[in-house]
Amino acid sequence: MSTTPIKHVAITGGTHGNELTGVHLLKHWRNNPEEICRDGLVTELHLANPKANGCNRRYLDQDLNRQFNWDDLSDHSLCGYEHNRAKSLNTLLGPKDAPRVDFIIDLHTTTANMGTTLVIKSDDALVVGMAFYVKQQMPEVTLFYEPEDRMSDNFLISLAKHHGLLVEVGPVPQGMLRWDVFDQTRQATLHCLDFLAAVRRGDEPDLPESLAGFQYVDKLKLPENERGELTAMIHPDRQDADYQPIKPGDPLFMTFDGNSINYEGTETLYGAFINEAAYYDQHIGLSLMRKIDIRLPG
Amino acid sequence: MSTTPIKHVAITGGTHGNELTGVHLLKHWRNNPEEICRDGLVTELHLANPKANGCNRRYLDQDLNRQFNWDDLSDHSLCGYEHNRAKSLNTLLGPKDAPRVDFIIDLHTTTANMGTTLVIKSDDALVVGMAFYVKQQMPEVTLFYEPEDRMSDNFLISLAKHHGLLVEVGPVPQGMLRWDVFDQTRQATLHCLDFLAAVRRGDEPDLPESLAGFQYVDKLKLPENERGELTAMIHPDRQDADYQPIKPGDPLFMTFDGNSINYEGTETLYGAFINEAAYYDQHIGLSLMRKIDIRLPG
Repeated sequence: MSTTPIKHVAITGGTHGNELTGVHLLKHWRNNPEEICRDGLVTELHLANPKANGCNRRYLDQDLNRQFNWDDLSDHSLCGYEHNRAKSLNTLLGPKDAPRVDFIIDLHTTTANMGTTLVIKSDDALVVGMAFYVKQQMPEVTLFYEPEDRMSDNFLISLAKHHGLLVEVGPVPQGMLRWDVFDQTRQATLHCLDFLAAVRRGDEPDLPESLAGFQYVDKLKLPENERGELTAMIHPDRQDADYQPIKPGDPLFMTFDGNSINYEGTETLYGAFINEAAYYDQHIGLSLMRKIDIRLPG
Repeated sequence: MSTTPIKHVAITGGTHGNELTGVHLLKHWRNNPEEICRDGLVTELHLANPKANGCNRRYLDQDLNRQFNWDDLSDHSLCGYEHNRAKSLNTLLGPKDAPRVDFIIDLHTTTANMGTTLVIKSDDALVVGMAFYVKQQMPEVTLFYEPEDRMSDNFLISLAKHHGLLVEVGPVPQGMLRWDVFDQTRQATLHCLDFLAAVRRGDEPDLPESLAGFQYVDKLKLPENERGELTAMIHPDRQDADYQPIKPGDPLFMTFDGNSINYEGTETLYGAFINEAAYYDQHIGLSLMRKIDIRLPG
């Protein structure tokens, strides 16, 4: 893997303040630093949005994990709480155009039944390789491949030189901890560090040339009336069925009076972020994904 | 059932602003009033905490459903948002010492795996009879019996002449809707109205003399360190195991580094509100309950 050596790794949590798993993993690792210590790596721990975490809210003014594209970081007329917090993190971990930190692992949770999902937003061999390595160790992991130019990507992980990896685990309600979710997040993160340490010492793991994953196609809004009020919710056939196929004609939503609304697409796709509580502010019901082969860059 | 006739029934939802099931059931019934219309009854629908609901928070200043005891309603030095909202609801539905409304059905949800639970806070024959009737129609329902003097009870339902019934359904994360939870809440509420209408027309349902239920014993805090920070979470053996027995020595909590903390009591009890997200502000992990026979008052 012909990349410059990785040394500085940041693990971030609480980017969404009510996703407690990352917040408490950071506390755990502060008290048990040997668990994240790897020869050759300097790993730092950052609570990304302490104020939102203190209020047990996803964010105060705007979603922090959408504030990191280069133009927004450079725009000082954007002055909401999370706009400022993003600029502060850019100073701490970046700056984005010449980052101090090589790699960021950002810890998230979802209310959807997505198990452990690794969100890959880069075609960098190191990022894809890391995701492949974690899936080798934890075959139950799902890979979500959505490469984006690092400077225009608006995710926190895009601050680091090699981009990074977003670890998304569920289902868990906001504002609480579940052991299964906590432990899966912990394991996935430790595998990430193992991989970076192995690459650094030139002991690169054997990885497959390609693995199956999913790519984002579209998101579907929950049905609304003319006043913008919800009139339906996720259909029980779709609830908890993340990464299961959605075929033309399959029920998507159930109206409040019990009628089904069906999928009108012509291609069989797959659901993700089904009934994610955090997306109710925009009345988004689910994402549609396409199954793909993800190739490890040469 | 020798009670004065019931006429005015209030259905309340959104008493906790991020419990959306009740909020959207109220909207549904506003658009479909025939579903809750019963001969002889006048049923009104009230969103109890619209401002907290607008912010998608349980409450703004204090838990609204703990503000209805007589002393607090009479204490005008209590001036938080929910203190004032409680006084306003007392004017709308009460006043508590001479209520306009005969019965309140208050709709709640929980993140715990409690299915449909009816919380009975009165030994009034009408309230207990209603709970028994609902359980006849929906055998999966659990009865939680915690009678309290109406004037000193601090729940919203205590504003009504005959007290009322709290319908608590889960698991569902805060800030979202699930069809199964929505539909169970709807069914339980409609059975309540059927029962009140039957009693009013003198067509009292045959009810058993007693039914099994649970009574609150104690609540257990999540383990903390000397700085008041969480050091453990609900043990996976307890997670989602509401109303299952907890025997002496059974694991209760799992520390962040994976060690079990066991139940030190000597009596087999039963868990409820296990890992309820709303109780994390006080670091309460679960309630311990005792199995009891609930007798229908003569």
